[in-house]
Amino acid sequence: MIGSELQTLIAYLSKLPGLGPRSGRRCALYLMKNKERLMQPLTSALQEAAEKAQTCHICYNLDTIQPCSICSDPKRDKVALCIVEDVDDVWAIERSQTFYGRYFVLGGVLSALEGKQPADLHIPELVAYVQRESIEEVILALSATVDGQTTAHLITAELRETGAKVTALSHGIPIGGELDYMDDGTLAMAFQGRRSFQ
Amino acid sequence: MIGSELQTLIAYLSKLPGLGPRSGRRCALYLMKNKERLMQPLTSALQEAAEKAQTCHICYNLDTIQPCSICSDPKRDKVALCIVEDVDDVWAIERSQTFYGRYFVLGGVLSALEGKQPADLHIPELVAYVQRESIEEVILALSATVDGQTTAHLITAELRETGAKVTALSHGIPIGGELDYMDDGTLAMAFQGRRSFQ
Repeated sequence: MIGSELQTLIAYLSKLPGLGPRSGRRCALYLMKNKERLMQPLTSALQEAAEKAQTCHICYNLDTIQPCSICSDPKRDKVALCIVEDVDDVWAIERSQTFYGRYFVLGGVLSALEGKQPADLHIPELVAYVQRESIEEVILALSATVDGQTTAHLITAELRETGAKVTALSHGIPIGGELDYMDDGTLAMAFQGRRSFQ
Repeated sequence: MIGSELQTLIAYLSKLPGLGPRSGRRCALYLMKNKERLMQPLTSALQEAAEKAQTCHICYNLDTIQPCSICSDPKRDKVALCIVEDVDDVWAIERSQTFYGRYFVLGGVLSALEGKQPADLHIPELVAYVQRESIEEVILALSATVDGQTTAHLITAELRETGAKVTALSHGIPIGGELDYMDDGTLAMAFQGRRSFQ
């Protein structure tokens, strides 16, 4: 009993991550009630981003300029390269403001379930990047899962020839984490990785 | 460290109901990764809906045709009119497929907190509608809140002259609701509204 244009809009909104049919309807209604304030600017923002968004040909990050704003920033540390699975991770690390080098987006991790094989990741491009730019330290910021760690081992092996130092993020209890809520694996890693205090 | 076009897109996505900065970023990234499949069709759907969406001049529902698809449907029962606060409520009742009459969207309920006064609701238009169309039953489907019930009393008073029968949705324990989770008000209403059980 709603016009087909609205149904189409709701269908597409429902496909956004974290949204479903109910929240899609809610968003569609909210948009239509705020046409000037939100619906029209959102439409133009989508159009502009769709036109300009592209994958950086150096690091596979997504941005509206080519190369991406991180690769083209001269202030960035040129000898440290952080390896991440996906663009989300670049954004997450950028928000934490703890890393001032550059990134390389692998495009996933090895996964038997998802059928991701070494050829599906940008590993040759990574090796070429490390050699070309004489990277001194490669920081592996991959998930603390079996797949992530398998991928980390593969990358370490592939980078052996380049002479770059390969490091990985530490594992342990997250800040704010309470000990009795931690799983066994995290506790074991935290004990293994213990360091002298003060 | 992200291009300004992406930041604008994220800012607008974050304003959607139920979304915040984090889910806005996630949506933006998902859209850019699914440009052909989702981003472009969503943009066109938004454009089309923005162009066509309008408030029905009979019942204040939102739709892409004028009058809305419910008001212009000849199969609808013409003697029953359901009064709701907002367009969301029309959609919710339509989904339940229990009402085959037409609707009238009040545009809110009286509220001291939000400064909503009788003049802010479409009450004169409602009275004119009921008289013009010789409505036999007006069903009040307003919230079971103090504001909703105050509004229901006001509408009943305003409609007295028209001779239409005014009914209201029943209150009680929702289907699937467990008794010991019900609040006192609901239990009291459920006792008051008890009916003979077959």
